[in-house]
Amino acid sequence: MTMISKDVLEKDNSARESALRQDYDHLGEQLARRSIAIDEVKARVSAYGVAVPSWGVGTGGTRFARFPGAGEPRHIFDKLEDCGVIQQLTRATPAVSLHIPWDKDDPKALLAKAEELGLTFDAMNSNTFQDQDGQEKSYKFGSLSHTDAATRAQAVEHNLECIEIGKAIGSKALTIWIGDGSNFPGQANFTRQFERYLGAAKQIYAALPGDWRLFTEHKMYEPAFYSTVVQDWGTNYMIAQELGDQAYCLVDLGHHAPNVNIEMIVARLIQFGKLGGFHFNDSKYGDDDLDTGSIDPYRLFLVFNELVDAETRRAPGFNPAHMLDQSHNVTDPIESLMVSAMEVQRAYAQALLVDRKALEGFQESNDALMATGTLKTAFRTDVEPILAMARLEQGAAIDPVATYRASGYRAKVAGIRPAVSGAGGGIV
Amino acid sequence: MTMISKDVLEKDNSARESALRQDYDHLGEQLARRSIAIDEVKARVSAYGVAVPSWGVGTGGTRFARFPGAGEPRHIFDKLEDCGVIQQLTRATPAVSLHIPWDKDDPKALLAKAEELGLTFDAMNSNTFQDQDGQEKSYKFGSLSHTDAATRAQAVEHNLECIEIGKAIGSKALTIWIGDGSNFPGQANFTRQFERYLGAAKQIYAALPGDWRLFTEHKMYEPAFYSTVVQDWGTNYMIAQELGDQAYCLVDLGHHAPNVNIEMIVARLIQFGKLGGFHFNDSKYGDDDLDTGSIDPYRLFLVFNELVDAETRRAPGFNPAHMLDQSHNVTDPIESLMVSAMEVQRAYAQALLVDRKALEGFQESNDALMATGTLKTAFRTDVEPILAMARLEQGAAIDPVATYRASGYRAKVAGIRPAVSGAGGGIV
Amino acid sequence: MTMISKDVLEKDNSARESALRQDYDHLGEQLARRSIAIDEVKARVSAYGVAVPSWGVGTGGTRFARFPGAGEPRHIFDKLEDCGVIQQLTRATPAVSLHIPWDKDDPKALLAKAEELGLTFDAMNSNTFQDQDGQEKSYKFGSLSHTDAATRAQAVEHNLECIEIGKAIGSKALTIWIGDGSNFPGQANFTRQFERYLGAAKQIYAALPGDWRLFTEHKMYEPAFYSTVVQDWGTNYMIAQELGDQAYCLVDLGHHAPNVNIEMIVARLIQFGKLGGFHFNDSKYGDDDLDTGSIDPYRLFLVFNELVDAETRRAPGFNPAHMLDQSHNVTDPIESLMVSAMEVQRAYAQALLVDRKALEGFQESNDALMATGTLKTAFRTDVEPILAMARLEQGAAIDPVATYRASGYRAKVAGIRPAVSGAGGGIV
Amino acid sequence: MTMISKDVLEKDNSARESALRQDYDHLGEQLARRSIAIDEVKARVSAYGVAVPSWGVGTGGTRFARFPGAGEPRHIFDKLEDCGVIQQLTRATPAVSLHIPWDKDDPKALLAKAEELGLTFDAMNSNTFQDQDGQEKSYKFGSLSHTDAATRAQAVEHNLECIEIGKAIGSKALTIWIGDGSNFPGQANFTRQFERYLGAAKQIYAALPGDWRLFTEHKMYEPAFYSTVVQDWGTNYMIAQELGDQAYCLVDLGHHAPNVNIEMIVARLIQFGKLGGFHFNDSKYGDDDLDTGSIDPYRLFLVFNELVDAETRRAPGFNPAHMLDQSHNVTDPIESLMVSAMEVQRAYAQALLVDRKALEGFQESNDALMATGTLKTAFRTDVEPILAMARLEQGAAIDPVATYRASGYRAKVAGIRPAVSGAGGGIV
Repeated sequence: MTMISKDVLEKDNSARESALRQDYDHLGEQLARRSIAIDEVKARVSAYGVAVPSWGVGTGGTRFARFPGAGEPRHIFDKLEDCGVIQQLTRATPAVSLHIPWDKDDPKALLAKAEELGLTFDAMNSNTFQDQDGQEKSYKFGSLSHTDAATRAQAVEHNLECIEIGKAIGSKALTIWIGDGSNFPGQANFTRQFERYLGAAKQIYAALPGDWRLFTEHKMYEPAFYSTVVQDWGTNYMIAQELGDQAYCLVDLGHHAPNVNIEMIVARLIQFGKLGGFHFNDSKYGDDDLDTGSIDPYRLFLVFNELVDAETRRAPGFNPAHMLDQSHNVTDPIESLMVSAMEVQRAYAQALLVDRKALEGFQESNDALMATGTLKTAFRTDVEPILAMARLEQGAAIDPVATYRASGYRAKVAGIRPAVSGAGGGIV
Repeated sequence: MTMISKDVLEKDNSARESALRQDYDHLGEQLARRSIAIDEVKARVSAYGVAVPSWGVGTGGTRFARFPGAGEPRHIFDKLEDCGVIQQLTRATPAVSLHIPWDKDDPKALLAKAEELGLTFDAMNSNTFQDQDGQEKSYKFGSLSHTDAATRAQAVEHNLECIEIGKAIGSKALTIWIGDGSNFPGQANFTRQFERYLGAAKQIYAALPGDWRLFTEHKMYEPAFYSTVVQDWGTNYMIAQELGDQAYCLVDLGHHAPNVNIEMIVARLIQFGKLGGFHFNDSKYGDDDLDTGSIDPYRLFLVFNELVDAETRRAPGFNPAHMLDQSHNVTDPIESLMVSAMEVQRAYAQALLVDRKALEGFQESNDALMATGTLKTAFRTDVEPILAMARLEQGAAIDPVATYRASGYRAKVAGIRPAVSGAGGGIV
Repeated sequence: MTMISKDVLEKDNSARESALRQDYDHLGEQLARRSIAIDEVKARVSAYGVAVPSWGVGTGGTRFARFPGAGEPRHIFDKLEDCGVIQQLTRATPAVSLHIPWDKDDPKALLAKAEELGLTFDAMNSNTFQDQDGQEKSYKFGSLSHTDAATRAQAVEHNLECIEIGKAIGSKALTIWIGDGSNFPGQANFTRQFERYLGAAKQIYAALPGDWRLFTEHKMYEPAFYSTVVQDWGTNYMIAQELGDQAYCLVDLGHHAPNVNIEMIVARLIQFGKLGGFHFNDSKYGDDDLDTGSIDPYRLFLVFNELVDAETRRAPGFNPAHMLDQSHNVTDPIESLMVSAMEVQRAYAQALLVDRKALEGFQESNDALMATGTLKTAFRTDVEPILAMARLEQGAAIDPVATYRASGYRAKVAGIRPAVSGAGGGIV
Repeated sequence: MTMISKDVLEKDNSARESALRQDYDHLGEQLARRSIAIDEVKARVSAYGVAVPSWGVGTGGTRFARFPGAGEPRHIFDKLEDCGVIQQLTRATPAVSLHIPWDKDDPKALLAKAEELGLTFDAMNSNTFQDQDGQEKSYKFGSLSHTDAATRAQAVEHNLECIEIGKAIGSKALTIWIGDGSNFPGQANFTRQFERYLGAAKQIYAALPGDWRLFTEHKMYEPAFYSTVVQDWGTNYMIAQELGDQAYCLVDLGHHAPNVNIEMIVARLIQFGKLGGFHFNDSKYGDDDLDTGSIDPYRLFLVFNELVDAETRRAPGFNPAHMLDQSHNVTDPIESLMVSAMEVQRAYAQALLVDRKALEGFQESNDALMATGTLKTAFRTDVEPILAMARLEQGAAIDPVATYRASGYRAKVAGIRPAVSGAGGGIV
């Protein structure tokens, strides 16, 4: 089943193919001068995928307001269809990451729908930062680190349920992000709180299937505004060490203090065998959850420079999971996710172009100017022809946004899915 | 009408009065050694009030979740009653600031209720950052600065309505905060957007009664995450200049970039006659809206040091409005507002203790150590006896939180006001 | 007089010319598809220049240490020769900005040397942040804002001297940056201090020739660590307003609070007719003075997007001065300045490629995704062939760093100029 | 040998003693009401000391300039005398921390001088961030992590020498802070660089006497402005783990990213047995090295709240070293160090006043308002009478700054020690 008609796709592609081939050929010549085989780069880009979060296809919001768009998905099956569009047009997003309980449904139906759309399921995400109807204990004052043992038990139980659902749909990882922390100095005892967290996390870890990985995610602040239990990569690393070999640290690009060198954190976690993967997005201020690469594309490239460096020197146990995690407040989420997946591929392709042998030489001789110039040469290469050709050859769109708009998909689902009211936000 | 029974109040006070008098007397002796008359300080503190925002008495939340407490106010009249409690027990919060349309109701009924509770109405707050049912145009892409003239007109019209309501209930100021901005580079043309904002603001200003003031509020980010139209005090100052003599800048303590020296901004706005007033709160990361003085009490003191300095040298046109603006996510809002109002008074009292003549001498001779020591001496004086005595003498509580808890007010209103579900946040 | 031999230059160019012509032609075809004439872009790039600071050709340092390189310039004539190399190889840096008293010398000799090297003199820079031998008053506690009138007078006098020197060598602007501020709360009275600053600045302004401009520069912190007199663009704008029509604000890209949207500040200053110009550099943490575009090249592009937008709509009075201001601690300063000048040109060229008509349409219809995509399309275009061709056609180097290294210039001057000891830094 | 005459001291004390006794008695009554025995608090404060850095008694500077004061110490013996003044007047600074090679001298002479002044020697500090005359290899591109093995060996050797000197003078710890990092993306390979660092650090660790501790210090940036090898506590913790049981993390309060919750980092390091100690100071922007407690005294208190919490529950292996590390640019360093030592004691005393049993109860029941109020009650208690009485009873000054000024010490040494020129800074 394809969400976008092949006619629309082919028509749009055929109008762009000739220029693409010219650009691809010329870029091939340029890269050949640098001793790079363009087809090899294209092959690696084609093989590269980033997971889409199920919640990403709905319009996001802030504590002040949410302004839904037309055709908001009603449930996980609508969400999967939207994800199917993204994968069909980009061939960059083969997997979907579910959030429980938001996406809870019959595993068989989920699997069938995914198969129909050519999708698989990535890491499972638990939710202990919100209260749900019918839930006995409230997470107002924390979940896995709550002072109350019964609340911690409820949160552990929920994570175990996520693992069970994941097993039924072929997932191989659980991602835990909690909002636990405090809003006032003294509200929580940092040490006791972290001890409780570790105790609860160990219970979850104990239930992890042998071929699964556990990802824990750090975040500096929000929703807690004075302290957060898993506040930075240092604490996250402690957790991964305490839990064991299947536990890894997840890096969300928007979860750090101002000015922090994120690519260095990535390098450290790789070096010590604890990089689990990424939540890609971009940010200017806090956890803005903006589209990947939209604010600082060079930083994204520098992160990928570390990843390709680790690939190149075959860092032991290096196998990071890649997922987008964004909040689309003012764009069509499908468009933002397509563009963001392509930005991730772009950064990867650029990082593949780095002349690593030359770079190593400049580093050894402390030729800072030429070393950084080596990165810049790769970064400023316009690799769009490589990405587009990879898409074309896989039956996807040369220009996914143009094809998507031409297809009228949004209007079509808006006719089926009811309009959603956006009044209100969390603040009132 | 008093919300808390006088018996409870008097009982709690009588248990504390003796110790208070001892402490007050001893502090009086200490201050006398510094040539300060404690009763004069007490008199100035007694005369000092800070307005309470109507929305502050409800439990706040984040985009992730909101966890309501018991007895959440159902409407503006419940809110006014909660504000009445705060004023009764602290005598520090004589006025309430309304938010339209949240608090829209019959002006006569509002006035009557306020009078009954011994309250008045402070600045009016308009809302063009959310869509409301029945509203024709959406603010998804802005309000006063929207590219669409009809949307701007709707936003202007709403502000004019706020003025009208304010006139009917005795308010003398309008506060405008907008969330307008952009989430992506290029989404908005900064210059055109600001031109449109100024055009719309001028229409509102033109409708301002001659004895009113217009307060505009800057904020670095949120809900917009790449750019914000009124992003800092520089832009805010431009606005106040463009509009005219009745236009002033409002400073919210949580709306600045990291590390910014806020007390210096306050000084600059005073110097150029454009400080309108404050939204008090505290923050560690972004616009955290934490309780005033809970994170960095010395910074609050330094702000008040500027205010008392301006009072002392009778800065022309200096008459700032003071309001709390906080989000109470994990505490009883009434308790947080009482404590916060007292923190504001505390900073004011401490600033009154600064030996300004000595300070000036140290400043002139660049004796940095003694100058800063002069501030520290004032700051580390425990002025609680002054605040408590001021309350006692006005019939309020020596320990407002203790009296409030003893009164059982929260349980009582929880019996009347229905429980509110907190499921969900803006993110889904 | 040319610093680098034409033989070396031509030899290096001839090895690169053929590939360049291919790339230029193909880029021309690509741009033609976007209705852009590549030769017009090249012409505008060729006409564009950025000034070099005389002090930039020496190795910089931190308070901890300075590690000089070989062949450090001994005096302003050595510095001018180094600047001559940069201009010869890039044709992007036609002017040099002097710093007094560091560069004080016979004006006629300066003019003659500059003419010989094909250079002119840009804005004059005064220095009241250091004490100099023979100077009567110390700037330890400030200069133009000092509490002592005689110290202020000395600082004013020094600025007047800078104007006199500038008049003799053809400069048309004075740039004032002061380090005045305080390290402790209370050390200075913010208002009095700013009053004194304004008083002194007015004296300097009064002596400004009618065809000169006065640039004042803001900076958040350093060398003062609690407060700075001209701490941000808001205060800087107040100064420019107070002084008059010849006074403008200078924006140094590294002088802002974390996360601040600098391109928006640029837009505001343009809109209100007060943008004087730039000190270009890049930074990750504070005023790091790193090479322009080395950390966040997209931010640099966004600044130029505002400048080209202002050019396009012919913003009244828009005529910004452009200068590099960097500290080269670990690279050959000549190389860093050449690369940085080219990065400035690159950002300018990319900004010229923005389809402004399409952008305006997307902005009007709030199509955020396509608007930001329009900027990205321009940014990711590899404009190196345009810059290189512009250089080639002006007799400069296709690859200035390669030519410079081939020339052996650094070794040559190292043979003439004595080695400098780098022991020590400011901290001891 | 005492640096300040006993007559001066006693005269100043006698004028203040009566008021002090009144204040102490009244505070004793207040604390008794809270079930706190004031004499016990005083005893713990009396037993508490913080080390003084030898370099702290000289006037500091920035890369822009240094403005020396009168009577700058010429060598380590002058520095020790200044430290003797601080200890005599405050009895809060019994030890001095040396910096090699700055303080290198005959160990016997150092020991004799220290004994004479009643001082001992704290941790040794190595210096591989500056080049010294006669040193073969330059640290321009790093020291312990340099790409060149001989440079690393030189840096290791220097640290071993510091240990040897330390052994001779009774020190029991080595503190390593390096400036290694990079100024450009790509300049250094993060992983290789950290591997080299660990290799070199292990060599130093291997030479550590069995009763010594090794402290490594992290810092976000400066002097490196893109990346720093030991950039944060996460990397620091990895180092301490890799090295072994005698390796600990040192926390300098000014070395973190903006907004970071430092007290939580302290708690984490205590919990995992790796907190080595502190470099106390305060900061508003970067590593400002301002006087301890001068900018955010509540943050200092919150750090001490963690320390007292750890003391109270007898955290295993908890034995942090305390040192001041400040740059005194505009004050008399002796005065700043005295005041700062007292601020450290003040925070300690306030933290001792926290009702920990009540706090624990509020934490258990998630009573955030009362929990934070419990901290605030302790913080806002003016403990000056406790500190002053502790000083008086140990023969120190009630008001050390007043006594110091009355003594004329600075003028006296200015007559002996020659004036120092302050021209220039690192930037030129």
